[in-house]
Amino acid sequence: MSASSAFDALMEFDRTTQALASVAGRTGWDQETVMPEGAAALRSEEMAALESVLHARRTDPRLGEWLMKAEASDEADKAKLRHLKRSFARNTKIPEKLATDIARHTSAGQGIWAKARAEDDFASFAPTLARMIELKREEAACLAAGGDLYDALLDDYEPSMTGAELQAMFDAMRPRLVDLRARVLAADAPAPLDREFDEAGQMALSSKLAATFGYDLTRGRIDKAVHPFSSGSGTDVRITTRTSPRDPFNCFYSTVHEVGHACYEQGVRDAYALTPLGAGVSMGVHESQSRIYENQLGRSRAFTGWLYGQMRDQFGDFGVADEDAFYKVVNRASSGYIRTEADEVHYNLHVMLRFDLERQLIAGELEVADLEDAWNARFEADFGVAVDKPSNGVLQDVHWSFGLFGYFPTYSLGNVYAGCLYQSLRKAVPSLDADLAQGDTTKATAWLREHLQQYGGLREPRDTIVHACGFEPSEAPLLDYLEAKFEDLYAL
Amino acid sequence: MSASSAFDALMEFDRTTQALASVAGRTGWDQETVMPEGAAALRSEEMAALESVLHARRTDPRLGEWLMKAEASDEADKAKLRHLKRSFARNTKIPEKLATDIARHTSAGQGIWAKARAEDDFASFAPTLARMIELKREEAACLAAGGDLYDALLDDYEPSMTGAELQAMFDAMRPRLVDLRARVLAADAPAPLDREFDEAGQMALSSKLAATFGYDLTRGRIDKAVHPFSSGSGTDVRITTRTSPRDPFNCFYSTVHEVGHACYEQGVRDAYALTPLGAGVSMGVHESQSRIYENQLGRSRAFTGWLYGQMRDQFGDFGVADEDAFYKVVNRASSGYIRTEADEVHYNLHVMLRFDLERQLIAGELEVADLEDAWNARFEADFGVAVDKPSNGVLQDVHWSFGLFGYFPTYSLGNVYAGCLYQSLRKAVPSLDADLAQGDTTKATAWLREHLQQYGGLREPRDTIVHACGFEPSEAPLLDYLEAKFEDLYAL
Repeated sequence: MSASSAFDALMEFDRTTQALASVAGRTGWDQETVMPEGAAALRSEEMAALESVLHARRTDPRLGEWLMKAEASDEADKAKLRHLKRSFARNTKIPEKLATDIARHTSAGQGIWAKARAEDDFASFAPTLARMIELKREEAACLAAGGDLYDALLDDYEPSMTGAELQAMFDAMRPRLVDLRARVLAADAPAPLDREFDEAGQMALSSKLAATFGYDLTRGRIDKAVHPFSSGSGTDVRITTRTSPRDPFNCFYSTVHEVGHACYEQGVRDAYALTPLGAGVSMGVHESQSRIYENQLGRSRAFTGWLYGQMRDQFGDFGVADEDAFYKVVNRASSGYIRTEADEVHYNLHVMLRFDLERQLIAGELEVADLEDAWNARFEADFGVAVDKPSNGVLQDVHWSFGLFGYFPTYSLGNVYAGCLYQSLRKAVPSLDADLAQGDTTKATAWLREHLQQYGGLREPRDTIVHACGFEPSEAPLLDYLEAKFEDLYAL
Repeated sequence: MSASSAFDALMEFDRTTQALASVAGRTGWDQETVMPEGAAALRSEEMAALESVLHARRTDPRLGEWLMKAEASDEADKAKLRHLKRSFARNTKIPEKLATDIARHTSAGQGIWAKARAEDDFASFAPTLARMIELKREEAACLAAGGDLYDALLDDYEPSMTGAELQAMFDAMRPRLVDLRARVLAADAPAPLDREFDEAGQMALSSKLAATFGYDLTRGRIDKAVHPFSSGSGTDVRITTRTSPRDPFNCFYSTVHEVGHACYEQGVRDAYALTPLGAGVSMGVHESQSRIYENQLGRSRAFTGWLYGQMRDQFGDFGVADEDAFYKVVNRASSGYIRTEADEVHYNLHVMLRFDLERQLIAGELEVADLEDAWNARFEADFGVAVDKPSNGVLQDVHWSFGLFGYFPTYSLGNVYAGCLYQSLRKAVPSLDADLAQGDTTKATAWLREHLQQYGGLREPRDTIVHACGFEPSEAPLLDYLEAKFEDLYAL
């Protein structure tokens, strides 16, 4: 078999695997949006069947043979080989028994975590978490080949990134954010919205926002779900959103956030569809798109000026006097326990707390028995308030019960990347504020598509950002942006 | 390997195949209901990937080995083996090249048929159809092992039924139906509905009808689609319906028809889920359920009396004076070209025409070049009017372009079976008319579930009917029912 026929065989085999993975993803969408409640047990068996087919394909010995022989000539084909080599190596390094143990423990752990959270009882979840950490350390050891365990896990979400790099970045962010948080909370806060907004109106404006940000509904759809998410690649990228009667911003900014993810997937070159390059390259880069759409663009003074008019059209007078006041309400910062409800000032403090703790857990430097205390102490130090109950603290997120160690820091990395991209975008599109004030995101989203989204998995995540921004990413642009924005908003 | 471990291995392997087939079915549902229009090409690749996985599993040589060794002790396990032996034999008898040729020709044939129908040009579809018949004859020859070619194809939809048996049944039906049709059309017809019925009202009453007939929405859902269908088994059985502003009966009876199919699937014993017994046993038996729900129950004098009140509640006075008049409007018979719009008097005449022609095509007794003339002559003989254009004649149905030869007769067989079941049901439930007049189908649907639906694939199709009815099925009960009903309705 020649190098080029090995490459072709590899690509054909992988294309079918990608198509099956696409079906599995959509089956997940179905489960969260339209599945009848009585179908849960059947659905588990279906997902297990799909996963067993996918696992068999991803560890098929023929892949190893083709990967040994295959050669690629151009940049895209080389990148495809790089992706396939990495994932084949990862998939074959984990013994089947360990993979099965993790899958079984994850499945059982969900229910135990949910019950513990509902009953505010960390102790009843602790043994399950301890066992999960043991299993993930075993997995990491298989993958790390003597290297850092946490880095091995992180590699699943953010290839080539290390815990040490993130630590350096977050150490530079934390004091400035703690300081900004303290100054903001000491200042006078605007009053929040204080009335109800009908669901149909929220959904109508939500759809308008999606279209405004360039989401293509001929290749996607919007449904309601308990948790907003984006799902799928290429020509079938679906998002969900939710409504809350007294908090229309929850609906609008959930939508814009998911539209950011979805536009990244829709923006990847057609030629990359069903290849290893046909999706967003990492969690961090993905989050950079959702966050720049949501925050730097969507919560800007310019865009909220336009949104104010839209809300007046949809809901009439809703008790906010003018655009300036509206900008303040949209960006109202307040102390809170829950990461997913956090504003731009608080959000990364939530993430860094989790990053530090999970890194210590995986390193064996922190025991699960001490985790709740460690969480509460760190929270009080960074947020200035004490955690009142575990469901507002260590039990709030589903991630650890799922075994997702190494996932949290990609949220903040995404914000850092969004900060970098926004700095370059402002230079590249001088009319940005004037455009956004008209509800026109065309140039901004076209710049992101042209400089980042279209490339999918062509470059490593960090290189994807460097290529788009034209400089090495750092936390500085994000911090400068946040300080400038909130010092202005709160007259600090 | 012992006989019982071979049996267990077989069942475990098949369970995963069933779960994957369930995913494939739901992917089809997604395509017809919620898929973004731009996703069609991606979806084709996904379906092809799923089909290739399913084909590989269904022809896996291990199945042959297990089937040789496996033994079953009880009736259900014996039936499971029977199903698996039959399908494995069928799946392995067709050479891969022929299967691929048929799949490719089917895929290409769709577009050619649709274009020919749109342009009313049979000649442009004729070569495609001729090639399809050639391929299906080849397939049938592989399956028939010297036996009848048409029977080999029919076996896919109605195991153990033969063309000769159907022919005898249909030959007895045709003269009585032609005679009834002529007498009905000569009599005074009631006026059809003549106003618009709002879509929301139609969907609301449609949902109420579904619940009234026992469709369980915790294990299903109702969506709109261009063509009504039912999809899935066990705990996830979804139906679709459609609305037409001036024809609410289209919506209501499409819903009740699909509810009949869906209740059959929902009614199968839980223990049979994801086994070869976990679905309706044949197309004919399936159609018996959809038709008895739709016609013998749904279009009865008693039930339409209740429905009249429901329509008055939903739409106000809609121009029909009373229950008796309403019964006549619901059952209004009229001449028409299109099978899917036909009333109870005309429907089976449409089906028998197709059965005779397709049987001759497969036997090589009729050439495609002569098909249009043969269709038109037969239509005029049975319906008393001449076909005006191919889209109202030989080009109206999608089935042949899909290679579905042997499918059509199961529609009429289902009506025949429904006639038999209805005769037994009336005896078993003396209060039937009184119940239906209150919109109460509980006893009727419970009888069908208890005597037929719960058994799924346990018995052969014909035995399933014999077990439920307590007698050998024949066309007589259906014909007696139709003549009595329409002689009364039209005062013949």
